[in-house]
Amino acid sequence: MSKRVLILMGSDSDLKIMKGACEALEDLGVGYEVRISSAHRVPDKTADLAKGAAQRGFGAIIAGAGGAAHLPGVLAAHTTLPVIGVPIDTGSLRGVDALYAIVQMPKGIPVATVAVNGAYNAGLLAAQILAVGDEALARRLSEYRAKMAAQVEEKDADLQKLGVEGYLARRS
Amino acid sequence: MSKRVLILMGSDSDLKIMKGACEALEDLGVGYEVRISSAHRVPDKTADLAKGAAQRGFGAIIAGAGGAAHLPGVLAAHTTLPVIGVPIDTGSLRGVDALYAIVQMPKGIPVATVAVNGAYNAGLLAAQILAVGDEALARRLSEYRAKMAAQVEEKDADLQKLGVEGYLARRS
Amino acid sequence: MSKRVLILMGSDSDLKIMKGACEALEDLGVGYEVRISSAHRVPDKTADLAKGAAQRGFGAIIAGAGGAAHLPGVLAAHTTLPVIGVPIDTGSLRGVDALYAIVQMPKGIPVATVAVNGAYNAGLLAAQILAVGDEALARRLSEYRAKMAAQVEEKDADLQKLGVEGYLARRS
Amino acid sequence: MSKRVLILMGSDSDLKIMKGACEALEDLGVGYEVRISSAHRVPDKTADLAKGAAQRGFGAIIAGAGGAAHLPGVLAAHTTLPVIGVPIDTGSLRGVDALYAIVQMPKGIPVATVAVNGAYNAGLLAAQILAVGDEALARRLSEYRAKMAAQVEEKDADLQKLGVEGYLARRS
Amino acid sequence: MSKRVLILMGSDSDLKIMKGACEALEDLGVGYEVRISSAHRVPDKTADLAKGAAQRGFGAIIAGAGGAAHLPGVLAAHTTLPVIGVPIDTGSLRGVDALYAIVQMPKGIPVATVAVNGAYNAGLLAAQILAVGDEALARRLSEYRAKMAAQVEEKDADLQKLGVEGYLARRS
Amino acid sequence: MSKRVLILMGSDSDLKIMKGACEALEDLGVGYEVRISSAHRVPDKTADLAKGAAQRGFGAIIAGAGGAAHLPGVLAAHTTLPVIGVPIDTGSLRGVDALYAIVQMPKGIPVATVAVNGAYNAGLLAAQILAVGDEALARRLSEYRAKMAAQVEEKDADLQKLGVEGYLARRS
Amino acid sequence: MSKRVLILMGSDSDLKIMKGACEALEDLGVGYEVRISSAHRVPDKTADLAKGAAQRGFGAIIAGAGGAAHLPGVLAAHTTLPVIGVPIDTGSLRGVDALYAIVQMPKGIPVATVAVNGAYNAGLLAAQILAVGDEALARRLSEYRAKMAAQVEEKDADLQKLGVEGYLARRS
Amino acid sequence: MSKRVLILMGSDSDLKIMKGACEALEDLGVGYEVRISSAHRVPDKTADLAKGAAQRGFGAIIAGAGGAAHLPGVLAAHTTLPVIGVPIDTGSLRGVDALYAIVQMPKGIPVATVAVNGAYNAGLLAAQILAVGDEALARRLSEYRAKMAAQVEEKDADLQKLGVEGYLARRS
Repeated sequence: MSKRVLILMGSDSDLKIMKGACEALEDLGVGYEVRISSAHRVPDKTADLAKGAAQRGFGAIIAGAGGAAHLPGVLAAHTTLPVIGVPIDTGSLRGVDALYAIVQMPKGIPVATVAVNGAYNAGLLAAQILAVGDEALARRLSEYRAKMAAQVEEKDADLQKLGVEGYLARRS
Repeated sequence: MSKRVLILMGSDSDLKIMKGACEALEDLGVGYEVRISSAHRVPDKTADLAKGAAQRGFGAIIAGAGGAAHLPGVLAAHTTLPVIGVPIDTGSLRGVDALYAIVQMPKGIPVATVAVNGAYNAGLLAAQILAVGDEALARRLSEYRAKMAAQVEEKDADLQKLGVEGYLARRS
Repeated sequence: MSKRVLILMGSDSDLKIMKGACEALEDLGVGYEVRISSAHRVPDKTADLAKGAAQRGFGAIIAGAGGAAHLPGVLAAHTTLPVIGVPIDTGSLRGVDALYAIVQMPKGIPVATVAVNGAYNAGLLAAQILAVGDEALARRLSEYRAKMAAQVEEKDADLQKLGVEGYLARRS
Repeated sequence: MSKRVLILMGSDSDLKIMKGACEALEDLGVGYEVRISSAHRVPDKTADLAKGAAQRGFGAIIAGAGGAAHLPGVLAAHTTLPVIGVPIDTGSLRGVDALYAIVQMPKGIPVATVAVNGAYNAGLLAAQILAVGDEALARRLSEYRAKMAAQVEEKDADLQKLGVEGYLARRS
Repeated sequence: MSKRVLILMGSDSDLKIMKGACEALEDLGVGYEVRISSAHRVPDKTADLAKGAAQRGFGAIIAGAGGAAHLPGVLAAHTTLPVIGVPIDTGSLRGVDALYAIVQMPKGIPVATVAVNGAYNAGLLAAQILAVGDEALARRLSEYRAKMAAQVEEKDADLQKLGVEGYLARRS
Repeated sequence: MSKRVLILMGSDSDLKIMKGACEALEDLGVGYEVRISSAHRVPDKTADLAKGAAQRGFGAIIAGAGGAAHLPGVLAAHTTLPVIGVPIDTGSLRGVDALYAIVQMPKGIPVATVAVNGAYNAGLLAAQILAVGDEALARRLSEYRAKMAAQVEEKDADLQKLGVEGYLARRS
Repeated sequence: MSKRVLILMGSDSDLKIMKGACEALEDLGVGYEVRISSAHRVPDKTADLAKGAAQRGFGAIIAGAGGAAHLPGVLAAHTTLPVIGVPIDTGSLRGVDALYAIVQMPKGIPVATVAVNGAYNAGLLAAQILAVGDEALARRLSEYRAKMAAQVEEKDADLQKLGVEGYLARRS
Repeated sequence: MSKRVLILMGSDSDLKIMKGACEALEDLGVGYEVRISSAHRVPDKTADLAKGAAQRGFGAIIAGAGGAAHLPGVLAAHTTLPVIGVPIDTGSLRGVDALYAIVQMPKGIPVATVAVNGAYNAGLLAAQILAVGDEALARRLSEYRAKMAAQVEEKDADLQKLGVEGYLARRS
């Protein structure tokens, strides 16, 4: 049976950003489960979710957090599954705080960090990780890439046809 | 009996900085215990140290960490004792990573953050916290402040006597 | 009698943020007094407030400031009570200026710094400090933590029931 | 047959940092190939290495780069294998330039970013990715984690025995 | 025949900013072609556009990109024409990510970087580059500068006449 | 006759911020002249304004600029009058660009820099400079300070009377 | 009688940098007094120094400080003399902390900020301020500028004579 | 006759970095002249050098500067030749100050900015600009690129032969 992806966040205020990860996984036909579980407010439950993840059939974990973003690192401490961290821009420091708090993990416990608010790419990365051992998924990823390329080509063709002003007028 | 201070760090490479906290506590006659316990490499032991700290007679916790510095926040999640965080400059990002990862804690779980590499001040702050309920310690803090002030006065007097060049010559 | 918390800010424009500290202290049943007193515009009065704080029954001071945020450090220079600093985001530098101006205090005079705009956590931290010598308050803090945990659990349960789209729809 | 890891860097000046990735993979018994291939100086060869990687039995790619660090992203554009990026501190901007140039990838093409100079963790992360489909490797990762934990415990035990001064004296 | 300028961007969302380059080139009577071609989503087509640019009569390339902005550097790897990079502010990191990812190019492959969102100046710079071998264009540039200077003089004259309040009132 | 203050900016888009300097000078009864003159678009006129300023009875110059803010430094190169620089927040880099471009002047040519968008304080500083040789102005400055202090005292008194909620309600 | 300059710093560790201010004042024949007086360790003495400065014949104050650099702002709160602040690079944050803590003063109390470690320029600026009311000093400033210009001209002449390699060889 | 490149810096302390530009131009057979001329200390001479540059046969200008790096922008204000700016790391702010002060030029006056300390690339960029109208130089640039590519290929071949340890041993 195909492995699924566990998506966590510490607060429901992060859900609007983190649903990007769900969308990517749906685009690629990968199953997932979304949980709210804070590294600081329910630390034991959070540890348990990480410890049991492999057993429950998850192949990767995605965790989004803002500020002193400890959730991805705390999960990574409790599992050897790959953990993908999404720094979330939640205020004055514009996500730089979350980026540093996620990416600068100490020797021994890596977190695979993506862009600030980059939840969609976190979903893609999880799919790429699962695809290492899943050829059908690897094929779907290739098709997804081809579709993306075609969209860029199409926009360029439209721009050649419409010109800059025409293209911008159409978009608004 | 007087409360003591629990000092933690995740790696023995932080000890050279963190011993500043020991020095401050010794200067003020406050007892302490120093432990190496990583939030990422031994997460369960670390949680246990925090959970048992109040019971074991500690009145405050000091935690130093560099990079994605999760240790102070992870400890704070497991105790309601005040946790003082010391961001440590461990590399390319010069401690800004650790500062953001410690100070930007989410609503509900504060960490009392001091300056980058400010372990000595962390010790003083722990003493100030314990002194809220310990008048003898409060008096020692006042005397410590008076001694600091006298040292500044003395340096200024020396400077007036020696002049800038003379003063700098004497120091080297 | 229980100790109270003195809350200061230099300008009434900071009050909207700083009332978060009042809310936290009310949530935990801790008394407080709120004052407007600028380190730069009324420096002598500000010094007097700090000097008299212990005498007047305060056990901790919370000071919020933006920009070249000197208020917490100036207060800390005049008392050995723990001073908690709240960096406030007041303009172009997004509170990084205030954070650096508060957290980077020199050896000898610490300020317990919390997150940018983190006034609520400053209130919690003050309560945690007072609770070191006040068992009833310590118990209220534990109950507060349990309530926070229950809220996270409840949100997670709702999310499992409603799904991502349903949950987000309900919130808006 | 077990999948291997392809390690790339644009300049041999990065090799001193990047050999950390080799060490991690050796610690975990994962095969690898190390190549020098610049995204800017030999762009076509670099593209070819990425395009052919899956075919040649690689399951993940690690790429290290400093400054305007394009190598990981350029590789990611030519393969759906997971690409791990290592920002390298090569000068005045202390690796912040490389971090931003690697982690902030656009929607559609993620790069799994680790800490500045974090090549060792990049190796671990590659192993964790391959372990999703390789139970023997997953077991080796668990053993590795246990060994790390034991080392921390041992250092803490030594510290309790020797005290701070004794411990620091022994290390120097 | 006069050389033209090739303007590229990776996404049509950058067009609103990048049309500033078109305006500058029109103001100076320089021909141009605008293309959408992503370094990550259609890397081969992007390489081909750079490789063929000199042959097709372009004398300079302008490329705008945000985030991990690789497009200018990727183009520069495939041509010896001068490449001008425009960092675009596309989100939380306010264009600092794009600036670093464009300006910090490694030895051997320069990119002429302009201000964040500075597409208009990129157009001017391209014109200045073409004008090195085109005296008529150089003259148009001098006239353009004289016109700019006259506008500043005129505004100053208006300000002297209207006063600060009057001038601001007129503008709103 | 009393010396006046010359206020310059490179673009009329800065006038909205820079009129703060006019207000401060009016509050203190100091005369001024406001000019639009760009260091880059009309460099010779700008140099002439600086060169002739002392002769025309100006005792200080205030210059506001955003981005690569050269105006204050360029003026300072052409006069030995004190030049006060106001970094203006004009875009993505939030005035940090202007701050660095103004404050980091090389040895030999200082610029007295104030806060980002701090035009009002620039006016006060100019007045403080002129007051060194103008006792009547020095007295007006003291009265201004006393008035500021009284306003803070009054706000604090209102807050004590109205309470936090009442005070905030009144303001909105 | 000519006015003098009061130079302050909070710690004798800043003296090595701050003597640059003395050198500049000596180069220009301006008298000065140097004092060690900390805003945090001897706040009342520091306030008294500021309050009495005008009375004692000082026309400007220079204050250097690192970290949460409060000294210049604290002095400015107690005098209407112009206060020049020198941010000092004292550690991990490389003087950015001191720069923000000095330059971002609130409305009403400006500090004239110079470059990080720019004590020499602080001395020049103080001289320029005193020269507003002292024509002899203004002439010495003009002569100083002419001498600086001549030195640059001389270096350029040497470079034309010796060539790049020859010039560099001579310097080492 | 082939156009040459004018290389300027404000201080001879920048010559060690700026000779990288000379080396690049020599590698490509482009003539140049190197001058020391400060935007702040000899502003009129600096303006004259820019104004006369086109007339004297220069086709591009390279200017290096640190701190509040005004030189490139000041030159650009006085010529329509392309001006290439090299931000130099001269102190605490690590060249970020110079980068912002050079790259963030206002609308109308662009500066082609390269990496911090990137003088060699500035030389290459100048050559690429001159090559737009000089086919022989364009060919030399292509050959230069081919040689660079060959060097990378050779290093990679050596690495395959020697292995990581062997390769690193040989280099030291």
